[in-house]
Amino acid sequence: LPNEWSRDGDEIVRVFEFDGYLDASGFLSAAAGLAEDAWHHPEMTVRWGEVEVRLTTHDAGGITEKDIDLAERLNGIYD
Amino acid sequence: LPNEWSRDGDEIVRVFEFDGYLDASGFLSAAAGLAEDAWHHPEMTVRWGEVEVRLTTHDAGGITEKDIDLAERLNGIYD
Repeated sequence: LPNEWSRDGDEIVRVFEFDGYLDASGFLSAAAGLAEDAWHHPEMTVRWGEVEVRLTTHDAGGITEKDIDLAERLNGIYD
Repeated sequence: LPNEWSRDGDEIVRVFEFDGYLDASGFLSAAAGLAEDAWHHPEMTVRWGEVEVRLTTHDAGGITEKDIDLAERLNGIYD
């Protein structure tokens, strides 16, 4: 799995950390742009100081290359 | 409770519906602005076509006027 991602059942998960709520929601918006570009749409939750991203491929019932690719791209705009 | 909100334990919840993922994440960003303005920060989850917002007042251990006020303001930018 890409760095900092872990498996949770049929999903892979990473919690991205930020100093505040607007920083977190700004990252979520940027991540949504990549998701739309990839036409692969994760569930993302914003809380104070963090965004949790959950990726899976519903059609395949599990993790596929689409999930790994988007996870790497999200790492790329964060790290 | 404000229109379309329901109680779930110590939280109030509404699912706002949209035609796509970017519309949903755009609403989440706008909602984050109101949340920052109110200094009251809900947990918000974006999925295809929807944003689920969960409000509670952690300090009080339940629902307060701060939750009701922000719920009404979120309804105001959506409805």
